[in-house]
Amino acid sequence: MAVVVQNIARADQAIIDRLAAAGVATVHEAQGRKGMLSSYMRPIYAGAQIAGSAVTISAPPGDNWMLHVAIEQLKPGDILLLAPTSPCDNGYFGDLLATSAMARGCRGLVIDAGVRDIRDLTAMGFPVWSKAISAQGTVKETLGSVNVPVICAGAQIEAGDIIVADDDGVCVVRRNEAGDVLAAAEKRLAAEEAKRKRLAAGDLGLDIYDMRPRLAEKGLKYV
Amino acid sequence: MAVVVQNIARADQAIIDRLAAAGVATVHEAQGRKGMLSSYMRPIYAGAQIAGSAVTISAPPGDNWMLHVAIEQLKPGDILLLAPTSPCDNGYFGDLLATSAMARGCRGLVIDAGVRDIRDLTAMGFPVWSKAISAQGTVKETLGSVNVPVICAGAQIEAGDIIVADDDGVCVVRRNEAGDVLAAAEKRLAAEEAKRKRLAAGDLGLDIYDMRPRLAEKGLKYV
Amino acid sequence: MAVVVQNIARADQAIIDRLAAAGVATVHEAQGRKGMLSSYMRPIYAGAQIAGSAVTISAPPGDNWMLHVAIEQLKPGDILLLAPTSPCDNGYFGDLLATSAMARGCRGLVIDAGVRDIRDLTAMGFPVWSKAISAQGTVKETLGSVNVPVICAGAQIEAGDIIVADDDGVCVVRRNEAGDVLAAAEKRLAAEEAKRKRLAAGDLGLDIYDMRPRLAEKGLKYV
Amino acid sequence: MAVVVQNIARADQAIIDRLAAAGVATVHEAQGRKGMLSSYMRPIYAGAQIAGSAVTISAPPGDNWMLHVAIEQLKPGDILLLAPTSPCDNGYFGDLLATSAMARGCRGLVIDAGVRDIRDLTAMGFPVWSKAISAQGTVKETLGSVNVPVICAGAQIEAGDIIVADDDGVCVVRRNEAGDVLAAAEKRLAAEEAKRKRLAAGDLGLDIYDMRPRLAEKGLKYV
Amino acid sequence: MAVVVQNIARADQAIIDRLAAAGVATVHEAQGRKGMLSSYMRPIYAGAQIAGSAVTISAPPGDNWMLHVAIEQLKPGDILLLAPTSPCDNGYFGDLLATSAMARGCRGLVIDAGVRDIRDLTAMGFPVWSKAISAQGTVKETLGSVNVPVICAGAQIEAGDIIVADDDGVCVVRRNEAGDVLAAAEKRLAAEEAKRKRLAAGDLGLDIYDMRPRLAEKGLKYV
Amino acid sequence: MAVVVQNIARADQAIIDRLAAAGVATVHEAQGRKGMLSSYMRPIYAGAQIAGSAVTISAPPGDNWMLHVAIEQLKPGDILLLAPTSPCDNGYFGDLLATSAMARGCRGLVIDAGVRDIRDLTAMGFPVWSKAISAQGTVKETLGSVNVPVICAGAQIEAGDIIVADDDGVCVVRRNEAGDVLAAAEKRLAAEEAKRKRLAAGDLGLDIYDMRPRLAEKGLKYV
Repeated sequence: MAVVVQNIARADQAIIDRLAAAGVATVHEAQGRKGMLSSYMRPIYAGAQIAGSAVTISAPPGDNWMLHVAIEQLKPGDILLLAPTSPCDNGYFGDLLATSAMARGCRGLVIDAGVRDIRDLTAMGFPVWSKAISAQGTVKETLGSVNVPVICAGAQIEAGDIIVADDDGVCVVRRNEAGDVLAAAEKRLAAEEAKRKRLAAGDLGLDIYDMRPRLAEKGLKYV
Repeated sequence: MAVVVQNIARADQAIIDRLAAAGVATVHEAQGRKGMLSSYMRPIYAGAQIAGSAVTISAPPGDNWMLHVAIEQLKPGDILLLAPTSPCDNGYFGDLLATSAMARGCRGLVIDAGVRDIRDLTAMGFPVWSKAISAQGTVKETLGSVNVPVICAGAQIEAGDIIVADDDGVCVVRRNEAGDVLAAAEKRLAAEEAKRKRLAAGDLGLDIYDMRPRLAEKGLKYV
Repeated sequence: MAVVVQNIARADQAIIDRLAAAGVATVHEAQGRKGMLSSYMRPIYAGAQIAGSAVTISAPPGDNWMLHVAIEQLKPGDILLLAPTSPCDNGYFGDLLATSAMARGCRGLVIDAGVRDIRDLTAMGFPVWSKAISAQGTVKETLGSVNVPVICAGAQIEAGDIIVADDDGVCVVRRNEAGDVLAAAEKRLAAEEAKRKRLAAGDLGLDIYDMRPRLAEKGLKYV
Repeated sequence: MAVVVQNIARADQAIIDRLAAAGVATVHEAQGRKGMLSSYMRPIYAGAQIAGSAVTISAPPGDNWMLHVAIEQLKPGDILLLAPTSPCDNGYFGDLLATSAMARGCRGLVIDAGVRDIRDLTAMGFPVWSKAISAQGTVKETLGSVNVPVICAGAQIEAGDIIVADDDGVCVVRRNEAGDVLAAAEKRLAAEEAKRKRLAAGDLGLDIYDMRPRLAEKGLKYV
Repeated sequence: MAVVVQNIARADQAIIDRLAAAGVATVHEAQGRKGMLSSYMRPIYAGAQIAGSAVTISAPPGDNWMLHVAIEQLKPGDILLLAPTSPCDNGYFGDLLATSAMARGCRGLVIDAGVRDIRDLTAMGFPVWSKAISAQGTVKETLGSVNVPVICAGAQIEAGDIIVADDDGVCVVRRNEAGDVLAAAEKRLAAEEAKRKRLAAGDLGLDIYDMRPRLAEKGLKYV
Repeated sequence: MAVVVQNIARADQAIIDRLAAAGVATVHEAQGRKGMLSSYMRPIYAGAQIAGSAVTISAPPGDNWMLHVAIEQLKPGDILLLAPTSPCDNGYFGDLLATSAMARGCRGLVIDAGVRDIRDLTAMGFPVWSKAISAQGTVKETLGSVNVPVICAGAQIEAGDIIVADDDGVCVVRRNEAGDVLAAAEKRLAAEEAKRKRLAAGDLGLDIYDMRPRLAEKGLKYV
């Protein structure tokens, strides 16, 4: 029952990097408004914007043993993603684990639990999106699994899925949809540019998107 | 039932600007400790301090259509304020809507729901106070109303009421009380200056406010 | 029932200062993973790292009178710590009280309730860890006690216990354990240095801590 | 600032009683899906279904003094409704106050705070809808107001508005809309009877409400 | 994107009924402590204990249109399961929909949102497990999907998976694991009978499960 | 560090039984409005009213091993009280442990975590006050302690302290204050009887407690 899946498939790194550049909100819209993790997942510092292949961890509450196991499975460009098997706010991860993960090319951590050593992680430039910040320590007694499907903050994530994270939160893209989502995202970005110019010039969304007739039809009254 | 009230009354802009300078805590105290929105309303970045006339929006959960309608009603110096008709943390508002609102002179957004494009909004200097940060998208299917009275984060707000917002949260001042509240706020600020000097010099509030007799009368014991 | 305990015992200031330098996560681990306040206690700004002797306050909900009483009991290096007798998010404390506390050498405030004047407190460099940020004002009608044992955010704290606080949260160290905890903390910091170097060089925690045999014994399968 | 408004207007008692019979969900729909208090307001026991004119109370956190003042203002058929000026879960109300309120014909209590003596209140048949159940006691130190407009659990309520409460929660009906709302509610109940029979016989809402064409037009695919 | 999957596979009804008899806690343990929905999912009345094949619904916040669509897909013995695409506590479901669902043999509803008409549902004996009880009404404007995989209260559920629900909450069993889980559950129940007798007679778990040596080895001290 | 304290002192059983009869609200008031556990601690069924000596358990999140250890320490009339070392809603306790505890005379369980087998526990008449109801299982891997001081739901509790619990929640009475608290509680109950009669007859608290002069002095206005 406690397994470590090695040799997971990953998406093309160039696609992943362009998804990072597109950002969470655009990627989320581009794939049909799906894939968002819960809004309680917040970055420990502002301004990070990353994407990477998920190395997933299913761990018991208050037990961070599997993080050590997972770090061995990291490839450059990956993101660690930990989902506890029941709600927990303990600090599973700190600067030593971050040092180890960075040494293997890890881009960040997404954890539906707590994290600590915030000042060090910030100084190191190792971004984390978490449910909590807590120094409360954990044990190493009970096994979990690595690179199995998990539910993390309300989203299902499989190993090798792409995690996109920025100040807006965290979004997951299915590995086999990455190319299509990227295409839609970049198309969306291009289209937004023209709209942004018109809006900045004072044109209204009501007119740009031709909303007035449908609003009237639905019965909106101006008084 | 779905209406847009046009031509709302607004307070004098000079009064509004001085309320902004006084800040939330002072204004709240000056009007008798009323008008605070719930403490879960937090700014998306630190340091903004604004006031403006409320353009109010009542919108269904997960539907941001009325924001487009409301933006047309904005005058320079206004603040958008959105209250969903039931609890929702979706990202109703992002950088395109902010671009449009700024083009019309809007000073910020107060929303009892979610907001997205945090990095862009921060770069643009468009402040938002919200219940959540979330990239989760919304639809445009169901009407709401603009410039009707709403309950937002536990406070009742009418179109044209003055919203004051800073790092301490959000406070509402009734339009027809703006002048009196400002006078009381500025008087309070002046009085605080003298107290601050005495406190900085080491005098105690116990003595400055003559609290010792009443504490003794209530039965406080020093041991 | 409402008492102010004067002349409390304090730990050696040099020990306290070194506990501050060790930081919350290390101190918490060094004393056997105990003493953390709840993870909802967050700093009002990033980067502060302090320790000090607790001047404790038990206060009614929505009543900040006892803060004035407590400030008189402060000695340089102390930390104010307020626990309401039932849950409350009001803003008990702002820039005037901070001015007074700083004038007496207070290093910061820990409060299981709300705080206000965030911008001023940040500018003054007076750190606060709180449950909420709120400008909602309080009254001065009901007595509480100063320097009695309190439960604050899930931890029991006695006057003179040492409070350590940084970006990871707040931890309490018993006054009579301060020396032992410091010794263990500094030993831990020294040991971490060597580990950090090995981890940065790419060694795995699995090997440094010799985890592989026990993982296998527990039944972990690699597939 | 602290006032007791005497001699409030009330709706016709016969209308109020028929609103009680219609129940919360029906009344809420009949008035256009407005008026619901937050879903955290729950009854202390199942099965009560009441309506009455609101005697409103604005009270400080942790201070139940105004309940005594409000009870004097009760007329037979009234409902006490208390909103604290900031969030509080203290037990403001118990069996003695209920005895007093019942003696004056009060039908129940709605309180955005705590209540206690649950076993006694249940035995007495005095229904309460509250945010919390708590025995934590309160003080009598700070004034509030009676029969002023309040925001209670997210809804604005004026003295004399009609409160309808049952196992589904609490709904407010504006006093001057009571007759119209009742007419719409009773019409709705009558219409539901026919639908209930068809649904019980196996007819589908899809057909009864003719939903299939619009679903197809919106793009729903059956696979 | 909005689809209704018809003709889903279902497990053997006899197995499902025996899973119901085993109950949530036993089934959850029998399948290796997996499958529990979040503990905030509570029954609207005590004592119901059911199992059935899931007819899943993915619906927008505040929009219950898809419930009408889903009811057509019900077969006798099924359970409706609704997951909103973002957090919502609206009352999606009441006595009319329950009448319709019961007419098609539906055994109950699991909904990560709100439900209303509690008194009627209780009288009808139609059990519901929900996140909230709320009369707040919903619209019928935006499509969702039926019988697609959903994340409901933190668990992933596919159409045709078996839902087991009782006073302990809600658990999901994969359709293709139903037989194995049942066998393990019934074995567990049988084993518990013997243990229960010994425990009732005063034997200790410490002895029955031979825990003393391992507790001593781990270092437990009796003082 | 992991210890089991045997042979704890207990209060007189007759006093404990009379505290149970007095109930939570009265006991809480009688000891000066202290000792309440947080209001999120709720009984699994209505109507139980108990008191007993606390056998305390400090346990890791998601690990119920120490319950087996604690049961051996029970004497007739005791109450088990478990505080996890960090927040957890797992189901630590079910019908088998209850069978064992009842066999040793245990009167109930207070647990700042989850409990399961609600239907069985209800049928057995074994009352539990908990933070959650959850079937989520736990492990037996990490030691905790028995009969050490704990913080449970915001209250500090030592082994042998008296726990009083009923529909209003849970209150702790210090062992060495039990007699005094009982005397004050019974005096209070007697005094309430006379007040209840007057209130039932229509006399007002305003008059019985002579509140009118102080209300006027504070400035209450009748309009």
